[in-house]
Amino acid sequence: MEYPNGIKKNNKPSILSYRNRGMTLESELNLSNEYYRDIEKAYIYKKPTPIKITKVDYPSRDKTVIKEAFFTIPSTTDYNGLYNGKYIDFEAKETKSNTSFSLNNIHPHQIKHLENIHNHQGIAFIIVRFTNLNETYLLTAKDLLDYLKTTEKKSIPLTYFKEKAYLLKDGYRPRIDYLKIVDILIGGI
Amino acid sequence: MEYPNGIKKNNKPSILSYRNRGMTLESELNLSNEYYRDIEKAYIYKKPTPIKITKVDYPSRDKTVIKEAFFTIPSTTDYNGLYNGKYIDFEAKETKSNTSFSLNNIHPHQIKHLENIHNHQGIAFIIVRFTNLNETYLLTAKDLLDYLKTTEKKSIPLTYFKEKAYLLKDGYRPRIDYLKIVDILIGGI
Repeated sequence: MEYPNGIKKNNKPSILSYRNRGMTLESELNLSNEYYRDIEKAYIYKKPTPIKITKVDYPSRDKTVIKEAFFTIPSTTDYNGLYNGKYIDFEAKETKSNTSFSLNNIHPHQIKHLENIHNHQGIAFIIVRFTNLNETYLLTAKDLLDYLKTTEKKSIPLTYFKEKAYLLKDGYRPRIDYLKIVDILIGGI
Repeated sequence: MEYPNGIKKNNKPSILSYRNRGMTLESELNLSNEYYRDIEKAYIYKKPTPIKITKVDYPSRDKTVIKEAFFTIPSTTDYNGLYNGKYIDFEAKETKSNTSFSLNNIHPHQIKHLENIHNHQGIAFIIVRFTNLNETYLLTAKDLLDYLKTTEKKSIPLTYFKEKAYLLKDGYRPRIDYLKIVDILIGGI
C-alpha cells in the first residue's frame, strides 16, 4: 500500500534514501513528467490514488472535509498520457530485493490492463527499481506477459530484467529519461 | 465541486432525475466506458478524484484509514484512455442552464490541458449536458478553443453547441455512444 501526497509510514531513514538522494522512484518520475510537460514533449500524469470516501463534513458553505476514507485497489496503472501521438501507460514499483521482483507488487487486473493496452496499440510497460542495487528497469508489457506465460512463479528474477528490460540511467533533467526507451519501442512497432 | 463515490450533497430529488432516469452524465459515461471495455473496444477510465490527505490512522497492521482529506483542483481532465490506437481525453459536465454553458465549470488549466492534447495528436473534447433540455453535446477541443479566441465571455451559448458540436443520443448499450463521434473525428484528421 502506498501513501500518496507526502503521507508516509514513520519509517526509519535508511541508507537507501541517501544513495537515491532522498528521492523515491515516484518522485523522480513525477519530476520527469513535469519536465516533459515543460518542454512540451509529452503529457503524462500520475493518476490520483483511488479512495472510497465514507464520511464527509461541510463545516461551511464552500468547504468540504473528508472525515473518513479508505484506499482502494486501483483498476488501472498509475501513469498514463500522450507522447508523440501515442497512448502511454505504465506502472512503477520499487523493490528491496536484490534478486527478483515479486508480482505481489502488481494487482492481477493491472497486468490485465497492461495486456489490453498492449493489444490495442498502446505503449505499455512497467518500471521497476531495485533500490538496494540502485538499478531501474523498463520492461515492456509484452516481455512481462511472455514471462508470465512460461512460469507459475510469483516473481520475476533480476536476470530476466537484465536480459529483456532496458536499464534507465539517472539523469538531471529529466531525472529518468524513459521516453528515450519509448522512442525505441515506437520505432520497433 | 463534485462528490465522488456516491457521496452527494443532500439535494432535493428533482424532476430532472426522473427525466434522465435517475442517472447523472457521469454515471452514464462510466457505464458506457465499462461496456466499451467489456466488448474490448476501448479502454477509457474516469480518473480518481484528486484529494490531499492530511491525516491517516493505522488502527491495525493491515488497515489504513484516512481521517482527514480535502478535494483538490484537478490538473487534467476526468477521463482518458485508449481507443483504436488513439489517445482519448475529455471532460464531462452538466449544466442546469437552458441557454449557455458557463466556463466556470472548467478550470483554466483543464482547458490548457485539452489544448496540449489537441496539439499533440490526441483526441480531445468536452461533453456537456444541458440537463433541463436533456441534450448532451460533444464539442471538440479545437472548436472550444476557437470559440474562446473570439470572445471575452465566460460562457458558451447553446447556439454554439447547436452549430458546432455533435448531439449525443441516449442509447441502451452503451448509454452514450460517444465513440461513434470519435470515429468521425479520427476520420477527419
